[in-house]
Amino acid sequence: MPDARTPDRRGLSRRRLLTGGAAALGAAGVGAVATSASRSDAASIGGFGSETIPFRGAHQAGITTVPPAHVVFVAVDLAPSATVGDLRSILRLWTTDAERLTSGRPALADTEPELATAPARLTVTVGLGPEVFDRVGLGDRRPASVRQLPPFAVDRLESSWNGGDLLLQIGGDDPSAAAHATRVLLKNVRSMTSVRWQQRGFRTARGVRPDGQTMRNMMGQVDGTVNPTPGPDLDGLVWDQGRDQPWFAGGTTMVLRRIRIELDTWDELDPRGRELTIGRRQDTGAPLTGVHEHDEPDLDATRMGIPVIPANAHIARAHHQTPRERFLRRAFNYDDPPPRGLTSDVGLVFTAFQQDIDAQFLPVQRRLAEADALNEWTTPIGSAVFAILPGVKGGEYLGQSLLT
Amino acid sequence: MPDARTPDRRGLSRRRLLTGGAAALGAAGVGAVATSASRSDAASIGGFGSETIPFRGAHQAGITTVPPAHVVFVAVDLAPSATVGDLRSILRLWTTDAERLTSGRPALADTEPELATAPARLTVTVGLGPEVFDRVGLGDRRPASVRQLPPFAVDRLESSWNGGDLLLQIGGDDPSAAAHATRVLLKNVRSMTSVRWQQRGFRTARGVRPDGQTMRNMMGQVDGTVNPTPGPDLDGLVWDQGRDQPWFAGGTTMVLRRIRIELDTWDELDPRGRELTIGRRQDTGAPLTGVHEHDEPDLDATRMGIPVIPANAHIARAHHQTPRERFLRRAFNYDDPPPRGLTSDVGLVFTAFQQDIDAQFLPVQRRLAEADALNEWTTPIGSAVFAILPGVKGGEYLGQSLLT
Ligand code: HEM
Ligand code: HEM
Repeated sequence: MPDARTPDRRGLSRRRLLTGGAAALGAAGVGAVATSASRSDAASIGGFGSETIPFRGAHQAGITTVPPAHVVFVAVDLAPSATVGDLRSILRLWTTDAERLTSGRPALADTEPELATAPARLTVTVGLGPEVFDRVGLGDRRPASVRQLPPFAVDRLESSWNGGDLLLQIGGDDPSAAAHATRVLLKNVRSMTSVRWQQRGFRTARGVRPDGQTMRNMMGQVDGTVNPTPGPDLDGLVWDQGRDQPWFAGGTTMVLRRIRIELDTWDELDPRGRELTIGRRQDTGAPLTGVHEHDEPDLDATRMGIPVIPANAHIARAHHQTPRERFLRRAFNYDDPPPRGLTSDVGLVFTAFQQDIDAQFLPVQRRLAEADALNEWTTPIGSAVFAILPGVKGGEYLGQSLLT
Repeated sequence: MPDARTPDRRGLSRRRLLTGGAAALGAAGVGAVATSASRSDAASIGGFGSETIPFRGAHQAGITTVPPAHVVFVAVDLAPSATVGDLRSILRLWTTDAERLTSGRPALADTEPELATAPARLTVTVGLGPEVFDRVGLGDRRPASVRQLPPFAVDRLESSWNGGDLLLQIGGDDPSAAAHATRVLLKNVRSMTSVRWQQRGFRTARGVRPDGQTMRNMMGQVDGTVNPTPGPDLDGLVWDQGRDQPWFAGGTTMVLRRIRIELDTWDELDPRGRELTIGRRQDTGAPLTGVHEHDEPDLDATRMGIPVIPANAHIARAHHQTPRERFLRRAFNYDDPPPRGLTSDVGLVFTAFQQDIDAQFLPVQRRLAEADALNEWTTPIGSAVFAILPGVKGGEYLGQSLLT
């Protein structure tokens, strides 16, 4: 297994590009790899804390960036009295803070500057909830598919995890740096906002397994194998072209679903049942019709007349029926202290990025809600949708194209 | 800064030994370092996931072991009907599970065996709460100082964080492996126990900063500098000698305090006030009477008649007045989603290990509760005490000396 940190600027190898299972590299991602490569001796001088991901670019970081070990998602609501000017102030403050923090510099008047010096691939990604556009008198600027998802029969949404006016997604390989950044970003806008919810997610810690391995979720599955191929394919699926909302060019939409995993009953299911539920092997992540993780599943294959991958297997239902029904999946595990009497409270903070939620995400979500074998062991308990702002070019602030 | 992972079996350097700020190395710790050294090429073959810390030894691992990046503390209560036989069954099960999991092998009938293969220095440490001895008819076997702490004026204890019949401390550098181990350990004893509380703590991620740097807490402070020196000094302070309770030889006692940090008001305090509160500089961690982190503080020094380190500074109050008033501190940050309206919910899961809580820990805790400048910004909200079982020698199970 080659050291994924070997300096190799040519080396946008498949393995590299597929980190996190086809976690793709857009503008920000490529920056990350370059930085990573240029820091490849970081281990010998003291670790990967100094690795940074550029904050500015055509797109925000934290979307096609190689997924980090830790993420904090925070939804904040605007104060009832907030104006479009307040929104602008918030986004300006976040621009300044995020640019500094992601580059390893303390925020202005940072009271814990020492927690800012090892960003460890810190990214800050900002989005606007559907309701905020009307709230500040910009209803006609809302990207059409940015509205809360319709209800699904499988949903058991808990109000504590839903919606939000603004989203902060703070990712990085170090929980201390991410915690500090979260706090700085929230406290500097305290007078204009209130926190609606926070969710913390994680993947395998950086350095535990070779870079580029697809993560596993708490069900034990390899999760994230099938994702759009980095490059034109991914870009065409994810980044808004500004056709309907010129200000939104370079932005994207995010669906965030908090999905509880019912591990107690899942653990009662035998290995064969588990594999048929997903359509893939648990050990290797290979499709039941293949041998290796990245083998193409054959959804039509039968054995003695019986489909090898059942029609209601998760991957059979989730697989796109048209090329347009694809999006970037970027899920993180959660594992919180369970309510009394339960053994665990685990699941996924599942995020999907796409140009158009209606055209790309919803057909798949509808098929899954209708008849996904996995539904017996997974329960959506939170749902939110955000317009992820376009990238911030030199001198600009987040959301500038919307607010001018 | 030398790469702390450079193979160097001689290299039990001071830096190494002081990882986590004088986190000390007992029997288990030395094993850890040896493993670490023998895996020093892990980065090039795919990370530190394969590093292991021996489960068996004169003492349990996870106490003098170099502190990991992640810890889960779980207190479970015995079912009302539980007998001493049930306690024995639980400890036998945990012995089997912990031995397998900490060595990177799945538990027996592990339903997610793939989550067990990269233990990343996984440790499992088991303790018994004060009440459990009477509960199972072994009241005369309770180590004398193992009882809940007396109340302190500063306490604002919330019942949800207090006490517990049994403690599991699960540590490691990978949150996925720790989450999986936690679940396995809990589910295999589900019928005999109920979970009382769970607390998650973290330090800087492994690999972010050079190994051996003292951690920082969420106040920004270098936290963990002064701790007993590894070797005879530490051993004499921590490990029970079996004088009062022969079965307890090789065990130790743990005080666990959940201490909330009032960051909102702390951040209003100017840098000078912050330093006077602790008696150390925030940037370097050096005492106000010194230059380097590990310089000995001079608690008597004055400048123009005024003490350089105020008498009510945290380190002045916490400093031992007799050599016996010392113990091993091993704190982890917590950063949980805050209740509505608050910006953050952060603090320390503070643990202290000592032979005798009354003689070593309590004098210090009393002085701090009485007049520690830090009290204005820290609030104990949880408290628990455990007898940490002696190490498990070959063929034995956890607690065998108590239960036979
Ligand atoms: C707790 C909830 C979920 C779990 C545990 C889960 C797990 C998995 C696993 C193990 C795979 C196969 C490996 C891979 O390609 O990543 C997969 C594939 C996939 N999942 Fe999910 N998933 C969940 C929810 C969702 C949701 C909510 C959506 C979208 C609405 C979704 C969409 C997909 C898609 C599009 C694929 C790839 C299908 C293909 O092969 O073309 N999943 N998921
Ligand atoms: C949130 C609560 C606390 C915070 C933020 C905190 C922070 C610190 C810091 C920054 C230091 C100086 C560096 C070091 O030597 O580690 C220190 C020292 C120390 N603390 Fe604390 N501490 C807390 C609670 C406690 C408690 C509850 C105890 C014991 C009852 C304690 C006992 C000590 C001791 C013994 C020292 C070393 C004193 C010496 O220099 O001899 N601390 N603490």
